[in-house]
Amino acid sequence: MKINGTHYRSVWLADDGHTVEIFDQTKFPFEVQTIQLRTMQDAATAIKEMWVRGAPLIGAVAAYGMALAMRQENSDVNLRQSYDILVKTRPTAINLKWALDRSYRILENIDSSLRAETAYHIANEIADEDVELCRNIGEHGLKIIQSMAKTKSTGEAVNILTHCNAGWLATVDWGTALAPIYMAHDAGIKVHVWVDETRPRNQGGLTAFELGSHGIPHTLIADNAGGHLMQHGKVDLCIVGTDRTTARGDVCNKIGTYLKALAAKANQVPFYVALPSPTLDFTVWDGVKEIPIEQRSGEEQSHVYGITPEGTRNWVNTAPQGTFCGNYAFDVTPAEFITGLITERGICDASAEGLRVLFPDLCGKP
Amino acid sequence: MKINGTHYRSVWLADDGHTVEIFDQTKFPFEVQTIQLRTMQDAATAIKEMWVRGAPLIGAVAAYGMALAMRQENSDVNLRQSYDILVKTRPTAINLKWALDRSYRILENIDSSLRAETAYHIANEIADEDVELCRNIGEHGLKIIQSMAKTKSTGEAVNILTHCNAGWLATVDWGTALAPIYMAHDAGIKVHVWVDETRPRNQGGLTAFELGSHGIPHTLIADNAGGHLMQHGKVDLCIVGTDRTTARGDVCNKIGTYLKALAAKANQVPFYVALPSPTLDFTVWDGVKEIPIEQRSGEEQSHVYGITPEGTRNWVNTAPQGTFCGNYAFDVTPAEFITGLITERGICDASAEGLRVLFPDLCGKP
Repeated sequence: MKINGTHYRSVWLADDGHTVEIFDQTKFPFEVQTIQLRTMQDAATAIKEMWVRGAPLIGAVAAYGMALAMRQENSDVNLRQSYDILVKTRPTAINLKWALDRSYRILENIDSSLRAETAYHIANEIADEDVELCRNIGEHGLKIIQSMAKTKSTGEAVNILTHCNAGWLATVDWGTALAPIYMAHDAGIKVHVWVDETRPRNQGGLTAFELGSHGIPHTLIADNAGGHLMQHGKVDLCIVGTDRTTARGDVCNKIGTYLKALAAKANQVPFYVALPSPTLDFTVWDGVKEIPIEQRSGEEQSHVYGITPEGTRNWVNTAPQGTFCGNYAFDVTPAEFITGLITERGICDASAEGLRVLFPDLCGKP
Repeated sequence: MKINGTHYRSVWLADDGHTVEIFDQTKFPFEVQTIQLRTMQDAATAIKEMWVRGAPLIGAVAAYGMALAMRQENSDVNLRQSYDILVKTRPTAINLKWALDRSYRILENIDSSLRAETAYHIANEIADEDVELCRNIGEHGLKIIQSMAKTKSTGEAVNILTHCNAGWLATVDWGTALAPIYMAHDAGIKVHVWVDETRPRNQGGLTAFELGSHGIPHTLIADNAGGHLMQHGKVDLCIVGTDRTTARGDVCNKIGTYLKALAAKANQVPFYVALPSPTLDFTVWDGVKEIPIEQRSGEEQSHVYGITPEGTRNWVNTAPQGTFCGNYAFDVTPAEFITGLITERGICDASAEGLRVLFPDLCGKP
């Protein structure tokens, strides 16, 4: 994807071949600032402090974190310790563990002198594979938007609502939920995106930034607005991402996703979830009962970054002084509210059977 | 209600007997600042710029606006013009028109020399009546909380979720949705309130400010969080206010109310709406189809007030520069999602029959 005409991925290697570069996404959408990660601890901090976010990107950065660790010290002890540190940086995203497991299983069985090079190779592979996954998700999702476009009069846009940021900034490129939208726009279909602000961390700003950079018409709205818009026929479909998808098709995604799914169901609006298979977790069945929901600092709720009238970025407390704030980061949308899952292998029902048909090779494995 | 131990109403007359005083609620919850309204135009500005908000308080301030107008010039022409200006200050709140009609009907039929004094008398009456309405709503709603408290173990709080600010700052005193909560707390029942932030204007900050001033435990949360909390049994009941209630019990309230009602229904959480009868509009049946929803400036969505780390109040743009923002101020919750309406005359079903039983004297009248 492009920023000011230049193509970027959201994680890449510097010219030295080993320093890992990312954008400081906490500065987005106000500043485009690159950060260099030189140590495993840098990578852990990047994930924990949400300089990078989005399940697929977190997975890729974690894998690069293993590579940085092996470059620092390629011992068994450091391999294990680095895994343990990185795996604890975020509690919910399944890709994190998936990427680390993939790296660890290979690295533990090879000679320590080969570990650094191999770890970079694995991380590059994970990043490249993610780009391909997203491209395929985009192509499958495009069909949904194409058929929706056929129901429209000439000049009328397909209105798509999305929550949080499941765009290229959350992946290595393309995005998940936004990939079909980029492809539809590029294919000449007129689309308009309702962008949920996504409190408390305002990832809707990232989505607006991405869409704006790509020239896609969009409107940023309060998370509260979607129900009203759906009641009044102003949303043709919803597409969101997911951090974790259970064996029966329950979806754990950014807090507030569930409320939009309820509104979509009540108003007969198709509700799709875009996911690369690494977010599938066949060890979990009932998402509401089984997935632990991360609670983060209340300060993320009370405080927000913005640009002052003087043009400087500032951090303000929007709550009364001393107010206790809750901050639940994710919620679970039960499968019954989901019209379909858009995966890299095609679209399926949000059900055990639907997933079994598309992923027979994965669903038997923990 | 009290601020720092001093009892206040949200609108009152200054010692001179004719200047109207209010709080600048746009400065809340950061500053407690009084504004003096000396002319009808001041009152119109106060409503339009949301220095005062909340349907009942808007009605009272509009009535005082008529009094200020008649003190300025008591002619028929000014009576009509002032009505026309004030009635257009906000499009949704039915109390505004209700209060202005009440004042206008009396004033047009009396000698112009009596109009100023009479208009103040009417406005005082409207304010006093509102306090009584809210007190009665509180007493009826208290019974719901009392019976919920009986299902709790010793020391366990009744968890109540509220959206927006339907507290004393939105009325003349007590509030509507919050009145039962104040009374429960004063009666020694342990309560805890989940306070929806209520984007885009963050009226949850007002609710947190009110509850904090009164010593009631509460947690400020993103509007996105309520669905998750209800899924996990962390909400015992919801109580919200309303700006307009239709003949069949549909409720028009702050944007996002509908999403919480959907989640409450899906999770068997009782969902109550507290309303003084002036918000009833028997001329409207189907709220979704018939009530026009106010769209306000996109800047209210993109920009927010907060306190900087240096302690000054600042206004920041949280969206990417130039992002187009939507701002729908209200939504409609259909009656089927509402467990009951808490009115000054008791609690009834959200239905034409329910309202007919409690308000036989009103439901026949347009």
